[in-house]
Amino acid sequence: MSFASHDSATRQSQGEAITAEEIAESGAKADDATARYALLLGDDSLILAQRLSAWISRAPELEEDVALANISLDLLGHARFLLTYAGTAWGKSEDDLAYFRGEEEFRSCRLVEQENGDFGKTIARQLIFSFYQHELYSRLVHSTDATLAAIAEKALKEVDYHQDHAAQWILRLGLGTEESARRVQAGLDSVWSYVEELFTDVEPMTSLGEIAVLPSTLREPTLTRLHQVIEQAGLSIPDMSGAHGADRSGRHSEQRGFILAEMQVLARQHPGATW
Amino acid sequence: MSFASHDSATRQSQGEAITAEEIAESGAKADDATARYALLLGDDSLILAQRLSAWISRAPELEEDVALANISLDLLGHARFLLTYAGTAWGKSEDDLAYFRGEEEFRSCRLVEQENGDFGKTIARQLIFSFYQHELYSRLVHSTDATLAAIAEKALKEVDYHQDHAAQWILRLGLGTEESARRVQAGLDSVWSYVEELFTDVEPMTSLGEIAVLPSTLREPTLTRLHQVIEQAGLSIPDMSGAHGADRSGRHSEQRGFILAEMQVLARQHPGATW
Repeated sequence: MSFASHDSATRQSQGEAITAEEIAESGAKADDATARYALLLGDDSLILAQRLSAWISRAPELEEDVALANISLDLLGHARFLLTYAGTAWGKSEDDLAYFRGEEEFRSCRLVEQENGDFGKTIARQLIFSFYQHELYSRLVHSTDATLAAIAEKALKEVDYHQDHAAQWILRLGLGTEESARRVQAGLDSVWSYVEELFTDVEPMTSLGEIAVLPSTLREPTLTRLHQVIEQAGLSIPDMSGAHGADRSGRHSEQRGFILAEMQVLARQHPGATW
Repeated sequence: MSFASHDSATRQSQGEAITAEEIAESGAKADDATARYALLLGDDSLILAQRLSAWISRAPELEEDVALANISLDLLGHARFLLTYAGTAWGKSEDDLAYFRGEEEFRSCRLVEQENGDFGKTIARQLIFSFYQHELYSRLVHSTDATLAAIAEKALKEVDYHQDHAAQWILRLGLGTEESARRVQAGLDSVWSYVEELFTDVEPMTSLGEIAVLPSTLREPTLTRLHQVIEQAGLSIPDMSGAHGADRSGRHSEQRGFILAEMQVLARQHPGATW
């Protein structure tokens, strides 16, 4: 199966694609609440990009290596847009926000912080997050904040592929061998308790009106579509009763500190240098 | 500085770009010597892709993260072409060749096997290898083997960017701060002894005539251009007298085993499975 054709990862961006540099130079300035929202969205993508990058050169097929690397790069690109825009509120760069915030200042959801586990668990996490993100960005394109709307439009095209990639793999593994079905089911079971946090209304979304998308409005459409594909793959919907309450504060995160330590060490050793 | 604009890493390949799948299905069948040559070239790219991937989410700037990830992905793409073509000679897949060969069967040069070190060392290694590879592929496009010529043509466009990326960084670091110049010079000094192996004529190149490019013919043009950019960056050409003799056999490699252990573990745990 061919999910991603890697043409030239180093081509120049074409047409009307936005870049982090363009956002930084556009003069658009987020207000504080909008910036905190952009940061929260960007943190999810940044952390998941970091997690997925660990698969590079370690996937079960070279083709899949390339696909996961591409998804990681897409998410890193989205994170750059969102962190750059957030930074306009406080005179900070994307690098300031990625490398010089403390663990307790990140707002990533616990789902993306979960360890990769085996390929089945990674795909389970991808399925949930890409379906959620697709619903989110499909609505965020109508944000009354023009920059957020433009970022959502750009990201949506790529998340569309991420969603397709994850769904194809769920079907392939679920309908594959007994072993592959067992592993992907175990993957779903192990991350399912982190689903609820995606749909929890927290600040700043609750005060942003038409600028943001209220997480609770994404719950029903996302779960309906997830249930469909999980059933189509012959797998069971995991039990939701053990859901971890969480508010993106990181207070209950066992993983965030480790992820950030690895990501931030180099930039912190040489602050302000080109290292 | 903006070296790589990441548009959409997951777009479908366009126009006349070749893919590993097309090579596998084209019916082109390499003879044994040509296959061994393709494998040797592919091993260099595969190992360097693996090394560079360790920078993802660990580079000193988010933008540079994306650039190194893109280069890693390009090289992984080239490796897939070359291993797929090599496999046509022996009825093996790219995955068979990447994951199920022993350490002593790889033919990668020691330069690409060197540890990343700091950013200065990685850039020094990139400079040498991309300049070498640019000279190589510029000639391989005229190979009498049509598949190798097509792969070289595709790869050359991307290596052109890799070369530009490395040269820009050498100048930026060499002409930057005292510390950045010191580090990149240390990087050049530490990898320079592995340069000579790139230009050593070994089997199968010596018996392939117009199908292959004889490494010794690349020595003078590659070194001339490397010397130019190193001097332009205010850095010194390292001493060649400590050159390590090597023949791509891996007999003197301290690193290959570790790299392969990491790369192959998953595929080997689940041979033939979709894991």
